[in-house]
Amino acid sequence: MKGAEYLYLQYADRVEKQIRASVFNTGDKLPSIREVCEHTGYSMSTVTKAYYELESRSLIESRPQSGYYISNILSRKIAVPSPSKPVISTVNVEREDLIDQVYGSMTDKKVTMFSLGFPSNELLPIAKLNKGMIQAMRQLSDSGTGYEQPQGNLNLRREIAKWSVNWGGALTDEDIITTPGCMGAISYCLMALTKPGDTIVMESPAYFGILQLARSLGLFVLELPTNMNTGIELDALKKALSSKKVTLCILMSNFSNPSGNTMPVEHKKEVVRLMEHFNVPLIEDDIYGDLYFGSSRPTSCKAYDESGIVLYCGSVSKTLAPGYRVGWVSPGRFKKQVLRTKLYHTLSSTTITHEVVGSFLKNGRYENHLRKIRQLLHHNSVNYLNTIQEFFPEGTKVSQPQGGFFLWLELDQKIDTADFYRSAMKHDISIAPGRIFTLQDQFSNCMRLSYGLPWSSSLRQSIQTLGMLAGK
Amino acid sequence: MKGAEYLYLQYADRVEKQIRASVFNTGDKLPSIREVCEHTGYSMSTVTKAYYELESRSLIESRPQSGYYISNILSRKIAVPSPSKPVISTVNVEREDLIDQVYGSMTDKKVTMFSLGFPSNELLPIAKLNKGMIQAMRQLSDSGTGYEQPQGNLNLRREIAKWSVNWGGALTDEDIITTPGCMGAISYCLMALTKPGDTIVMESPAYFGILQLARSLGLFVLELPTNMNTGIELDALKKALSSKKVTLCILMSNFSNPSGNTMPVEHKKEVVRLMEHFNVPLIEDDIYGDLYFGSSRPTSCKAYDESGIVLYCGSVSKTLAPGYRVGWVSPGRFKKQVLRTKLYHTLSSTTITHEVVGSFLKNGRYENHLRKIRQLLHHNSVNYLNTIQEFFPEGTKVSQPQGGFFLWLELDQKIDTADFYRSAMKHDISIAPGRIFTLQDQFSNCMRLSYGLPWSSSLRQSIQTLGMLAGK
Repeated sequence: MKGAEYLYLQYADRVEKQIRASVFNTGDKLPSIREVCEHTGYSMSTVTKAYYELESRSLIESRPQSGYYISNILSRKIAVPSPSKPVISTVNVEREDLIDQVYGSMTDKKVTMFSLGFPSNELLPIAKLNKGMIQAMRQLSDSGTGYEQPQGNLNLRREIAKWSVNWGGALTDEDIITTPGCMGAISYCLMALTKPGDTIVMESPAYFGILQLARSLGLFVLELPTNMNTGIELDALKKALSSKKVTLCILMSNFSNPSGNTMPVEHKKEVVRLMEHFNVPLIEDDIYGDLYFGSSRPTSCKAYDESGIVLYCGSVSKTLAPGYRVGWVSPGRFKKQVLRTKLYHTLSSTTITHEVVGSFLKNGRYENHLRKIRQLLHHNSVNYLNTIQEFFPEGTKVSQPQGGFFLWLELDQKIDTADFYRSAMKHDISIAPGRIFTLQDQFSNCMRLSYGLPWSSSLRQSIQTLGMLAGK
Repeated sequence: MKGAEYLYLQYADRVEKQIRASVFNTGDKLPSIREVCEHTGYSMSTVTKAYYELESRSLIESRPQSGYYISNILSRKIAVPSPSKPVISTVNVEREDLIDQVYGSMTDKKVTMFSLGFPSNELLPIAKLNKGMIQAMRQLSDSGTGYEQPQGNLNLRREIAKWSVNWGGALTDEDIITTPGCMGAISYCLMALTKPGDTIVMESPAYFGILQLARSLGLFVLELPTNMNTGIELDALKKALSSKKVTLCILMSNFSNPSGNTMPVEHKKEVVRLMEHFNVPLIEDDIYGDLYFGSSRPTSCKAYDESGIVLYCGSVSKTLAPGYRVGWVSPGRFKKQVLRTKLYHTLSSTTITHEVVGSFLKNGRYENHLRKIRQLLHHNSVNYLNTIQEFFPEGTKVSQPQGGFFLWLELDQKIDTADFYRSAMKHDISIAPGRIFTLQDQFSNCMRLSYGLPWSSSLRQSIQTLGMLAGK
């Protein structure tokens, strides 16, 4: 890295150091780009890129027609949880009862639901979606009462294809099959490509819903060591692929659930290369990718897939409307099998909600909405992190995601978060205990907190209560 | 059968004979019940029951505040297709290409789609559903954008429970899990209760969608001999259950797809008894049950199930709105497994469409609508049958369903309906060839015609064209 490239990073690093040293504080206005140019002698382009870089590090934010301001950032860096080291085996430990406990109480309004992984109503553009619904009833010849074509709503598929340029893709509508949410997509892919007794590879910790689905299909899950910043460890992945018969791999490439990690571009490329080399399909779950806090959307593994070995899954369940059940898969070379699986299991998607989302994407409303929800989530995440730092005992480790919904906390080894869950519920606070995110015996001192709930003083109090319980 | 029971049937038989002998003709008014009492000396109750009986035989129909009239019935009885005699084995023959051919052209507007198994727009209460949609957006706190509870919309489950008295059931909302359509229900049941290599029992011919689903799950399908009026043959069922390891049985109890048969009450009772005796679960698919032409809805096997061995599946996809994807299952003693399967594969149903259907059932609109669609389908079926009789060659056999959507035709042995399909498509007419309804080598001279399309002179012409092709 030389010359201009180097300069902008150098300048960005310098400003970051100043921010971390509290030279600038939350809410302070930064000098304008023009001013910086005058003081430093850097070009406009260098300073602009440096500010973008600082924005992508969530240190500063731009306010339209005003300038750049210091974000509500952490004044002290809390440690990131240690990389996971699951045993390289496929033990099956019963976790379902705990999951039933945590998610059985989902509709109890008085409980503060840090355990949920989707946006609260306040974050959703409900009025606009309702307008879209009325429009869709008018536009569709049967008002959405009839079946769609098996591959799914054409308008929606076209918009998803256009959208794919944002993550480095170049899809066409023919590449896409719509599904009932992202779980529907993953379910179709797994059913199309595996049979009971097969072994699949996942990161660890991993979303419990996929672990449960895999088990219910009779699959063995090989959980691999995972770095809380950069995702699955490539050496471990390579070793697994070369030494075991692996049928497929499922990874969350961006702002992973639960640990919040994002694979760097070079990792993404290498994962695709490995998959191609060993001829193992990759189901890429990119459901959180649009919720980045930085200046641009991270790419996906699919962006580097030339042979069609990646089955790319997405949805609007985390950004627009979980209850609409709108998701999709771009199954690469496995299109025929996945399409048949959809047809056999559910015939077709819900016509009207898929039309509404198609229109929402088409008229640019989605982009506007994402800008808002990203900013809200970013602010939430910083408020959560600051409050955790304030009230949780020394030694607590927390992930620092650059997008998505989740914080992954590692508490003192003595604490069992299954018990912690029960204590917290006595205070009407629900958290997701770490052991539901693995089939092995690990993460019992970890937990996942969602920051999808709107920030408030009572939320702050709930975090304070959790911190008090963690210090007991 | 003696006394009063005997008298009403005797009188009904007498009137039927007169109708068949053209003493009365289509549209003629029958004497009022009071008049008949005076002439015959029978009691009001006997004559009323006789008229109900004639109505249930689709020979007469009542017009409100006017009286009873002769229906548009067949003047000559066409033969019913012979009972099926599949080989008692589990051969797998590839049928998918033919199915892809027939259902790949589903959206081509110029084709007359006798091949479809769902109502055309003209039969659906679209305006009322749209009103319901607007109401649901207002009523639901999140306008239906959020997830439902896993078991499904409570209002809808309550209404389905109330509705169950119509088929002899006594369900509560706790007994019911909502699903994306009836296929979703069957898919969850099959995934919850089977593993690859298991053998399941079905009638023959059977709905190709379920055959395909079963194959994709690695199941062997034992197709049993089936009577075109009364359904699966009980001796064959008993023999299969006692001699083979059968994991479960799937039956359509009423107006079966494709053959239109309905199991008599005694058969339903005996099937449940056999299932209990051999401890084999029954997935009962009753998706067409509400579309009866007679005076009352036929019961279901579930009505006679005391041990919870029947998993009862239904939906509104054939009566209200296929594209809403609203179905349900009452899984008896298998509730826990089925609920988990739903949760793992799709998390939850589409919130808003399920709410709309719940309200539609609640305010009595469903019953009003059913009355209309039943009458339309009944008229269609008679028109189709009369036209087939007029234009198809002697020797053609046709089922005479008392409800549902389908006619099952048996043509001359020399005719292959896969070829026939291609000839018909040259005239822009699509039919469903018989061999897609079996995994064996049978029914190649049969086909399924749907009478869900509204009657018209051009439809009559299309049937005439089919008859001409069948006579070649």
